[in-house]
Amino acid sequence: MSFPSRLWAAVERKGTPAMIGVDPRPAKFPEPFRARAVGRGAAGAAAAMRDYHRALLDVLAPRVPAVKPNAAFFEELGPDGFGALADCVAHARALGLIVVMDAKRGDIGSTAEAYASTFLAGGYEGAFPAADALTVNPYLGSDAVAPFLEAARAHDAGLFVLVKTSNPGADEFQGHGTPPLAQRVAAAVAQWGAALVDSSGWSSVGAVVGATRPEELAVFRALMPRAPLLLPGFGFQGGEARGLAPAFDALGRGAVVNASRSVLWAHERADLQHLPGWEARVDAAVQEMVDALRPVARAVR
Amino acid sequence: MSFPSRLWAAVERKGTPAMIGVDPRPAKFPEPFRARAVGRGAAGAAAAMRDYHRALLDVLAPRVPAVKPNAAFFEELGPDGFGALADCVAHARALGLIVVMDAKRGDIGSTAEAYASTFLAGGYEGAFPAADALTVNPYLGSDAVAPFLEAARAHDAGLFVLVKTSNPGADEFQGHGTPPLAQRVAAAVAQWGAALVDSSGWSSVGAVVGATRPEELAVFRALMPRAPLLLPGFGFQGGEARGLAPAFDALGRGAVVNASRSVLWAHERADLQHLPGWEARVDAAVQEMVDALRPVARAVR
Repeated sequence: MSFPSRLWAAVERKGTPAMIGVDPRPAKFPEPFRARAVGRGAAGAAAAMRDYHRALLDVLAPRVPAVKPNAAFFEELGPDGFGALADCVAHARALGLIVVMDAKRGDIGSTAEAYASTFLAGGYEGAFPAADALTVNPYLGSDAVAPFLEAARAHDAGLFVLVKTSNPGADEFQGHGTPPLAQRVAAAVAQWGAALVDSSGWSSVGAVVGATRPEELAVFRALMPRAPLLLPGFGFQGGEARGLAPAFDALGRGAVVNASRSVLWAHERADLQHLPGWEARVDAAVQEMVDALRPVARAVR
Repeated sequence: MSFPSRLWAAVERKGTPAMIGVDPRPAKFPEPFRARAVGRGAAGAAAAMRDYHRALLDVLAPRVPAVKPNAAFFEELGPDGFGALADCVAHARALGLIVVMDAKRGDIGSTAEAYASTFLAGGYEGAFPAADALTVNPYLGSDAVAPFLEAARAHDAGLFVLVKTSNPGADEFQGHGTPPLAQRVAAAVAQWGAALVDSSGWSSVGAVVGATRPEELAVFRALMPRAPLLLPGFGFQGGEARGLAPAFDALGRGAVVNASRSVLWAHERADLQHLPGWEARVDAAVQEMVDALRPVARAVR
């Protein structure tokens, strides 16, 4: 099944467009994983990370359609961390979760091919489990995005191209020029994705637009009518549900909304201490997010 | 010693601004490494890659000041490939080579911190050997570049920010607006680097400008008078030495010029088959590059 149909089927199965970002920081793991991770070197931390993520994904899988591992925090643990990332992807996919690899890669053609191979096509002789989709940085232009498009086509995978990011300073370059660069990139996303629209009417080529920028969402939706949107920055970064409605259609399709720290760090939340154990606190934080998103994606069963 | 002084000392010691890109493709390794790499799975390929790079770096170290490992081709081999990348960095630095990690990372603040930690600061509890410098994608803006600047400052490391890349389609977004986006990024590079200028008069914050774009070099040099420039695309991508002169000052400082495939694949070159073994062919290709660069960096001893 092609990527958008797979994504919407998962969203409808779970009844929410909530996506959880997996941004692992060993010092913030719940116990007993934190104690197993800290002061044991990278190999020890990576082993604890692997076990924590398996347990975390088991909690998340019944509740949300998708997860977004952030490659940076795995790479920081070196080769063992890269192994923990592979394990996270494989375990999540085995649980039926849609996996969006958040690696924000972008490079010239021959190098882009290698990144696309790694994250969307199994790498060299199956060295790395393929994700469902990958985040891509467009700064280098269409010819640098082309290998990612080709991999998406060949492997029924998706792309989320950075259009407007969730950080406070995103406008500095993304807002440069007339029309603003981000709008020009958005038009390119629509063009790149035109040949990759499936029977759901949606394209495999999506875009990242910060959930922190609701005022621009209608503009980007109009420029990219068939692009699944990844809306990061919900929760901890200040993004709120109201304002995200323009990203969704009448069926509740059109976007996934990502939160990371507000869910991952739920075990530290003062207001959730009455719940026994980190699993219950994560579950409560996910439920809170699902409830908050219900008004904007209300058509989702 | 701070990054620019370390870089110029290496350039002057070797008498050339030539940098070799390490873009490993197992099927293109010289023998016996190719035979050891192909059909042995990712672990076998990574082991052959590690040994090949140690031998390659031993050939390069007496001749050039710097190497630029391209993370994509290592990652394609999964966790074992990431291990081969760590080995490549460690071996190159042990040989006194300046290592520019070409990973083109860029993400929002907290994630950028993790990437900067991995590649410039040893990662989590020393999980990954620090490179001398890292390539950075500026699309997300100043606040996303800030953690890389902080790591450069704290660890005497360098950055090469993508300003104008070497691919044919670079102008699509990098040329957007008035002034073109790349010039606006260049002005930002100069501003980011102003606080990181060392006793050589150069900044730790450099920029990538394609060697394929000599006509724009004077403009970028004027916008970034203290930024070391990384000029990729020499050789295989068509960049030629004439036209690169504006990047260099009267001392022959100011830039490093990168070639990858034209040197790495020298063992296949028809005109070098009279030389015995891949080492001699790589050496000849390096010498050719050094000779070609002599006119533009003629002050270099």
